[in-house]
Amino acid sequence: MDKLTVIKVGGKVVEDPTSLNVLLDQFKKVSGNKILIHGGGRIATEIAGKLGIKTQMVDGRRITDSEMLEVVTMVYGGLINKRIVADLQARNCNAIGLTGADLDLIRAKKRDVKDIDYGFVGDVKDVNTGELRLLLNENVVPVIAPLTHDGKGNLLNTNADTIASEVAIELSNHFNVYLFYCFEKAGVLIDSEDENTVIHDLDLKHFKKYQSKGIINAGMIPKLDNGFRAKQKGVKEVLITNQENIATGKGTRLI
Amino acid sequence: MDKLTVIKVGGKVVEDPTSLNVLLDQFKKVSGNKILIHGGGRIATEIAGKLGIKTQMVDGRRITDSEMLEVVTMVYGGLINKRIVADLQARNCNAIGLTGADLDLIRAKKRDVKDIDYGFVGDVKDVNTGELRLLLNENVVPVIAPLTHDGKGNLLNTNADTIASEVAIELSNHFNVYLFYCFEKAGVLIDSEDENTVIHDLDLKHFKKYQSKGIINAGMIPKLDNGFRAKQKGVKEVLITNQENIATGKGTRLI
Repeated sequence: MDKLTVIKVGGKVVEDPTSLNVLLDQFKKVSGNKILIHGGGRIATEIAGKLGIKTQMVDGRRITDSEMLEVVTMVYGGLINKRIVADLQARNCNAIGLTGADLDLIRAKKRDVKDIDYGFVGDVKDVNTGELRLLLNENVVPVIAPLTHDGKGNLLNTNADTIASEVAIELSNHFNVYLFYCFEKAGVLIDSEDENTVIHDLDLKHFKKYQSKGIINAGMIPKLDNGFRAKQKGVKEVLITNQENIATGKGTRLI
Repeated sequence: MDKLTVIKVGGKVVEDPTSLNVLLDQFKKVSGNKILIHGGGRIATEIAGKLGIKTQMVDGRRITDSEMLEVVTMVYGGLINKRIVADLQARNCNAIGLTGADLDLIRAKKRDVKDIDYGFVGDVKDVNTGELRLLLNENVVPVIAPLTHDGKGNLLNTNADTIASEVAIELSNHFNVYLFYCFEKAGVLIDSEDENTVIHDLDLKHFKKYQSKGIINAGMIPKLDNGFRAKQKGVKEVLITNQENIATGKGTRLI
């Protein structure tokens, strides 16, 4: 099977033009099939604020009422996505910006209301690998925003880490998939303030141990849950790293 | 040659959910290859206003400084484009939302500063018909936002009427192209207040005569300039009409 690299790039790297440029330079150098999936939550929060719309988060997840859905549709699907596409085209990388609605790529189910009403938040149901493979086959580079749809005309806000793992898992039937979670740190750290404490190889047992001790916490937990799930479901390699180490392969490897 | 229908839908139809639904229902019924190109200027003006960014227009063209470029990127490329895509997918129409940067579809040149500095406004230089034909060949329906790029990483704001005519002209080497300019009136009117005064067939000579008499004015002039240019450059049929008459073919036909 051919190799496919799926790179998810998180909020802070996307926000900072210098980091984003480093990432795109590195991404450009990745050979073969590749997909970029981006977040952008903090930019959405900032623009929502300017529009007088308050951001409400529960356990790191954004409550997405209809006004906030407009904001994330604009910011994720428009501002961030199309800037990255234009920047990749300037690097002679034939990018196409997509949401889950485009080509019916990612269908999701609006999350049921239990204790919390997350609003227009979607849980991935189905990844249309046929359309993605057609694009990859034409040497096109999909750039995916964290938006899905329900097939009834509603866009839904969906976590970018989850989209990355679901896309990687579904495509692992057709490719040897290498999944990179790229953020502002050099990997999963024992001491979140010290970049010299990267855990180089992390297995599920140690993840659970570090989690119970509070060494691994906050936003890293869903990222690792997604990463281990991908690893178990056939993704060849999962690496947590920063924008500078995509080529070197340094960071935290899930084993 | 196969038939291709290119439909440009303007501001007011896009703004009003009821009109937009009628348009999308009609668009869904168009058989064969089709492309939808949308505007959305008034929504951009509204959101810019909420963000405290002032809209400056010269001869109906938007002055696009870097702040306004962010707004149109969000609104055209994100909000309007992705909503239309989700709505078409709900109608089982396999839409893909695109700007000129995606797949390097439409390159433009930033407009030179003469009397007026329009800012990040682009004049179309090149339409990548190869990529559009690949999509059409897969029964995909491109939905194009009025944004282009310069190949150096800059997105540019480009008039949707012009994008429609340029795309139609370039594709007329490969298809019999039918170009519809769809807006809120039943066609070009002798009396702009009276929908019963539609000019059914309009040639260039009469257009110039009506223009000199002030009967045809304002935003209709660039639309007709684009339309006649398309007709002269090989587009088979150009029709100015409203969302209800896409199927009937009623409206103003350029001859």
